[in-house]
Amino acid sequence: MTSKAKHSLLVVGSLAFDSIETPNGSVDNALGGSATYFSYAASFFSPPRLVGVIGADFPDEHRQMLANAGVDIEGLVTLPGQTFRWKGRYHQDMNTRDTLEVHLNVFGDFDPVLPAHYRDSTHVFLANGVPALQAKVLDQVRRPQLVLADTMDLWIENQRKDLLALLPRLDGLLLNDSEAHLLSGEANLVRAGQAVLRMGPKFVILKKGGHGVMLFSADGVFVVPAFPTETVVDPTGAGDSFAGGILGYLTSDDSPPPGRLRRGMAYGTIVASFTVEDFGLDRLRRTRREEIDERLETYRGMLHF
Amino acid sequence: MTSKAKHSLLVVGSLAFDSIETPNGSVDNALGGSATYFSYAASFFSPPRLVGVIGADFPDEHRQMLANAGVDIEGLVTLPGQTFRWKGRYHQDMNTRDTLEVHLNVFGDFDPVLPAHYRDSTHVFLANGVPALQAKVLDQVRRPQLVLADTMDLWIENQRKDLLALLPRLDGLLLNDSEAHLLSGEANLVRAGQAVLRMGPKFVILKKGGHGVMLFSADGVFVVPAFPTETVVDPTGAGDSFAGGILGYLTSDDSPPPGRLRRGMAYGTIVASFTVEDFGLDRLRRTRREEIDERLETYRGMLHF
Repeated sequence: MTSKAKHSLLVVGSLAFDSIETPNGSVDNALGGSATYFSYAASFFSPPRLVGVIGADFPDEHRQMLANAGVDIEGLVTLPGQTFRWKGRYHQDMNTRDTLEVHLNVFGDFDPVLPAHYRDSTHVFLANGVPALQAKVLDQVRRPQLVLADTMDLWIENQRKDLLALLPRLDGLLLNDSEAHLLSGEANLVRAGQAVLRMGPKFVILKKGGHGVMLFSADGVFVVPAFPTETVVDPTGAGDSFAGGILGYLTSDDSPPPGRLRRGMAYGTIVASFTVEDFGLDRLRRTRREEIDERLETYRGMLHF
Repeated sequence: MTSKAKHSLLVVGSLAFDSIETPNGSVDNALGGSATYFSYAASFFSPPRLVGVIGADFPDEHRQMLANAGVDIEGLVTLPGQTFRWKGRYHQDMNTRDTLEVHLNVFGDFDPVLPAHYRDSTHVFLANGVPALQAKVLDQVRRPQLVLADTMDLWIENQRKDLLALLPRLDGLLLNDSEAHLLSGEANLVRAGQAVLRMGPKFVILKKGGHGVMLFSADGVFVVPAFPTETVVDPTGAGDSFAGGILGYLTSDDSPPPGRLRRGMAYGTIVASFTVEDFGLDRLRRTRREEIDERLETYRGMLHF
């Protein structure tokens, strides 16, 4: 859990209490949120600087847990009121879910301000959020080397102009298959990815849930299958853990560019495969870096022919 | 298009006239059927011996086309009446389709009898069909070394006993995700594949449509993503082309077993990626073996990290 002094990782996103129902069990008020999953996943490689907002109800043990993982929590702002709450139910196939309740609470007033010493961050993850706020974060970073952003259907439909203005400022955009269709109007996934690439980001990572991801860049298309796991307890946070694995790895690695992003995506895939094996952060918190490297080698062997 | 004398490949399945509607176009009475796609795909590596039934309406040019690809058509039986006809319509995502019409015609009376010189076949593909007939074919093969069978939801639901009796006689079973759920009762795909493996076959290939396949065997789980193609004109025959690529390759290859099956699956993936680029057999008929090898190397590069 060391990061090289010359590179530093920033994440801006949500912290939440999630209540999750799955066909195999449920959990109430588990610590979740995009920035939480991202931070913990990244901490195996390069612990990030975190910007987020929590309510007065946020227990000190959660803060402490993040700090113990090496996460810089100076950018964590506490506002009067309650922390963001989300409640969802997964379908039998675990690839789709219904949102049952959303209470933005203090997250509805989120106005991300970077502590002064965060402004030299080289690697940045803009977790899913209002595109105008994502842009505002970027305005505060002095000279970012690699910016990855997530988005969602809501912003594609309702904040399209702001989102399109943001895309050329990104290195990578992360989105799922239905969001790629929505943004591009293309039914074929490869065409959809290529169309989004033409909108400005340097690369596009298209997530296909339990089926892995595709990477689109000037180098062409790459496919990264999911690690096949028989234990899918709770898929919540898989996408943000994937992003955390990628950027945590990239922040810690100085090897030449072409293979690096794909290696980062492999690490992201493996970290996410641990996340889904239990509710919330439970499995990640029991994971050792050696387990990640072991599973990465198993995965590499699976893809070799 | 040469096959080694000591190994020979047999396929038993359907020949059909397909009428296909897609969001991008349609075709009427194109030559199709499981045995047709399998044979043509296999012919790039090791042309098979074909057993199937056609009606008096089957044009001589189709016979000739198969023979020109090296396929042994002595087992092709012509009965009075019409050839099997199928009509289907693909949805926008190209991964799902509705069957609009099925006319079994002469295929309803199919009683596969192997010509004497077919009985020493070493590699066998039992295309989707009534499990009792698949077993009857197997009874006629003297000493098969590798038997792969396809099946469908109809047999899993209505001929379950016959199907379960067939499974221990197989090396490999090919089925798609919904069929694996139906056969095993397991919602998780990895558990479903492992459960089907315990039913008797030596390996199970679980097809996930445009998302590739998973292989289950005593060696564990392997993932084989689809080749990402932006040109999906007609997915009909992709699964049978995939099987044809696998078995055609395996029949022609004498290298040690572990890597061989995965290499076969990679070839199957690539052949299927050509099949879907045009209606019916049109793209495969324009494909050269060198194109297959070139795309295989591109694919290998895509998976490397």
